[in-house]
Amino acid sequence: MKKADVVVVGGSAAGPVAGITVRRHYKDVSILLIRKESKVMVPCGIPYIFGTVGSPDKNVIPDALLSNNGIELMVDEVTMGDRVAKTLTTAGGETIGYEKLILATGSLPLQPPIPGMELENVFAMYKDADYLGRVQEVLRNSSDLVIIGGGFIGAEMADECKKIGNANVTIVEILPHCLLLALDEEFCVRAEDALTQRGIRVITNNGVKAILGDGKVNSVELQSGDKLKADAVIIGIGAVPNTELARKMGLKIGEQRGIWVDKYMRTSDKNIFACGDCAEKFSFFTKKPSGLRLASIATIEARIAGANVFKPKRENKGAVGIFSTAFGDFALSAAGLTEKAAKDAGLDVVIGEAAAADKHPGSMPNARELKTKLIFDRKTRKLIGGELSGGTTTGEMANVIAALIQKEMTADEVATFQMGTHPALTASPIVYQIVNAAEQAAIKLR
Amino acid sequence: MKKADVVVVGGSAAGPVAGITVRRHYKDVSILLIRKESKVMVPCGIPYIFGTVGSPDKNVIPDALLSNNGIELMVDEVTMGDRVAKTLTTAGGETIGYEKLILATGSLPLQPPIPGMELENVFAMYKDADYLGRVQEVLRNSSDLVIIGGGFIGAEMADECKKIGNANVTIVEILPHCLLLALDEEFCVRAEDALTQRGIRVITNNGVKAILGDGKVNSVELQSGDKLKADAVIIGIGAVPNTELARKMGLKIGEQRGIWVDKYMRTSDKNIFACGDCAEKFSFFTKKPSGLRLASIATIEARIAGANVFKPKRENKGAVGIFSTAFGDFALSAAGLTEKAAKDAGLDVVIGEAAAADKHPGSMPNARELKTKLIFDRKTRKLIGGELSGGTTTGEMANVIAALIQKEMTADEVATFQMGTHPALTASPIVYQIVNAAEQAAIKLR
Repeated sequence: MKKADVVVVGGSAAGPVAGITVRRHYKDVSILLIRKESKVMVPCGIPYIFGTVGSPDKNVIPDALLSNNGIELMVDEVTMGDRVAKTLTTAGGETIGYEKLILATGSLPLQPPIPGMELENVFAMYKDADYLGRVQEVLRNSSDLVIIGGGFIGAEMADECKKIGNANVTIVEILPHCLLLALDEEFCVRAEDALTQRGIRVITNNGVKAILGDGKVNSVELQSGDKLKADAVIIGIGAVPNTELARKMGLKIGEQRGIWVDKYMRTSDKNIFACGDCAEKFSFFTKKPSGLRLASIATIEARIAGANVFKPKRENKGAVGIFSTAFGDFALSAAGLTEKAAKDAGLDVVIGEAAAADKHPGSMPNARELKTKLIFDRKTRKLIGGELSGGTTTGEMANVIAALIQKEMTADEVATFQMGTHPALTASPIVYQIVNAAEQAAIKLR
Repeated sequence: MKKADVVVVGGSAAGPVAGITVRRHYKDVSILLIRKESKVMVPCGIPYIFGTVGSPDKNVIPDALLSNNGIELMVDEVTMGDRVAKTLTTAGGETIGYEKLILATGSLPLQPPIPGMELENVFAMYKDADYLGRVQEVLRNSSDLVIIGGGFIGAEMADECKKIGNANVTIVEILPHCLLLALDEEFCVRAEDALTQRGIRVITNNGVKAILGDGKVNSVELQSGDKLKADAVIIGIGAVPNTELARKMGLKIGEQRGIWVDKYMRTSDKNIFACGDCAEKFSFFTKKPSGLRLASIATIEARIAGANVFKPKRENKGAVGIFSTAFGDFALSAAGLTEKAAKDAGLDVVIGEAAAADKHPGSMPNARELKTKLIFDRKTRKLIGGELSGGTTTGEMANVIAALIQKEMTADEVATFQMGTHPALTASPIVYQIVNAAEQAAIKLR
């Protein structure tokens, strides 16, 4: 029987980082990573396969990441585990012993209960290179593409599919706006404007009643009664934790359907850890169960789980949630709670807003307006969220906000936060958006 | 006699921000800003006048910033003040009464004691639009340009001057490397490589003995004895606080030659505040007097001084020092202490380093390698500095590091810092540089 001190199941964002973190903290243990995919997709890169990057083969997480860190790789599917014997069994007939087990089994695309989901050319975004290669072939030859769901995956897929051909691309979103779970309405409107300007049709406030066709999909019927022609349909309405193995092994499952974990990322079995999309999460802000599922959260959880595998060293503080996306050179990002999410959580909020060129003076080439909105909790005066729209620095600016949030800075502290500036790289120090938005809120809080 | 509740002297980065901050905190007070320049230059934009931006007129801080905030503007030079009568007198013959006075008189270019400084076409970078316009005329027609000083101003001036014509541009730096006061050696070398690749000659470890010429400059003699042909010379060796008015008014001056201030930015006269380049600074890290002088520090001090003008509300925590610069699409940045500066301050440091593509997968267009070095204090385990080289996101990434420094995060905390990522905007979450560099340091600290 094969045996390793630490066995990691799953090869996407969380699994390799968990393995590498174990190696960094424990030089001498044996580490085995088991995954079912021969090639692993960079998860956030999947939409970009279809346009910018060009093929699944250019979106692969290199296996050198494992071998360079002394992590053995086994490509096989773990089908069952025995917590008493501390063994796993695989589809390939292997039995593997573990001392400590880290589950990073990820998530699966959420399948909506819509008639017609089984039709040919209706695709969900499985993280599988061969599958995605087949999807790409179909999309290349599509002339009418309907994307169900206007979240990040839907919006990014729409933009990428528009780049490759001349297909009519339509997003159907059941909520009043695209991206509404991550951004406040005014930012969603800017995203929709960008998508529309790029030739994408955006239908909101309208669900899908049925996917229609005869063997192959040929149209989509909306709840409004309208019908959209469609020779391919992409489902992008979210993901559900893949907890099949955990359930079979009798591990506790959480309210949000993830594998239950404590603050050390330990499951209900203290020799088994879980991290990434498969693991239950809680909010940094409310400490309540959270439905957030992001590669960035997955890797941080993996760094906690990996460090803790032989003894608790690090604690999970809860998911902050930091998003960003780009449509051409227009980008949007967010960290923490939106105004709406904060109000829904019962918080009394104070808003600060600022806009300025993202370079200075504004006559610098490629300068564009960058807007910031910050959300503070009136009671604690602390920063609890921020949103940005502008150019390509908004991704890292969301990380500035994320840092300020995680260290619980008040409006006054953010208003005197020392930042650096440069004409070609940032706004002027006089109008630096995060600081000025915080000052506006600080005044309201006095 | 004209009178205002708050009089601000100085119109560059600190003055307007101090005035605006007073307005934000005190709706009903009268605010008068007095400055001697008819047009004010964006200070960090000055090098870019000569190439990218094209003229001083395109690098002006708009006066609307003042009028929109109900700040009266007087263009005149304050020549004297009477602290008992609480009045100022100007070159134009005005007497102005103040309740509270904020000095933001800035700095002047440091003039080295080199023979030949008085020759025609030897220029220091005064923040004056007309003067800079004349410099630009000369530089446009120069064929051999020597820049004395390889700090940020010298390096940026060299790069911009190379853009406008075919002049031979040479930087002469007395230290072993350009930018050595802001970056560790390995980052300086990358900057020098970038400058050299852009056609700039970089001479280090060599000072200037004399500037030679007959009326007009014609050459520069180095300490090594070499002579460089020169029809124009730019001095970029630093700046000294402009404390003339403060001295005349009998205010206390600090060790680093700035106007002495307490943590509320009050001078030795409690009705007079000082902020920006004219004010004495202390280090965030060592709490000792600091020679740092940056527009970004100036604006933060102005936000503290402005808020405190009628009663103490905010405290200055000391200068962190966040720099960034760009040569084409290669950018460098730093926050806090370099490894060398930390060691010079007697600290025992632990270093973490990481490099990865700044987009993901690496096949995304325009992806380039971004290197990070983090410096931690072994005793406290806290982050005290960071340096970056890479693409145009390094400016905002230095601000991420700045936020982590200011909230005194330990290596373990930075290693589990939640950041957001996106293929077009950031590194992959698996290899995000700041987090991975911190993890390396965290292991060394165990």
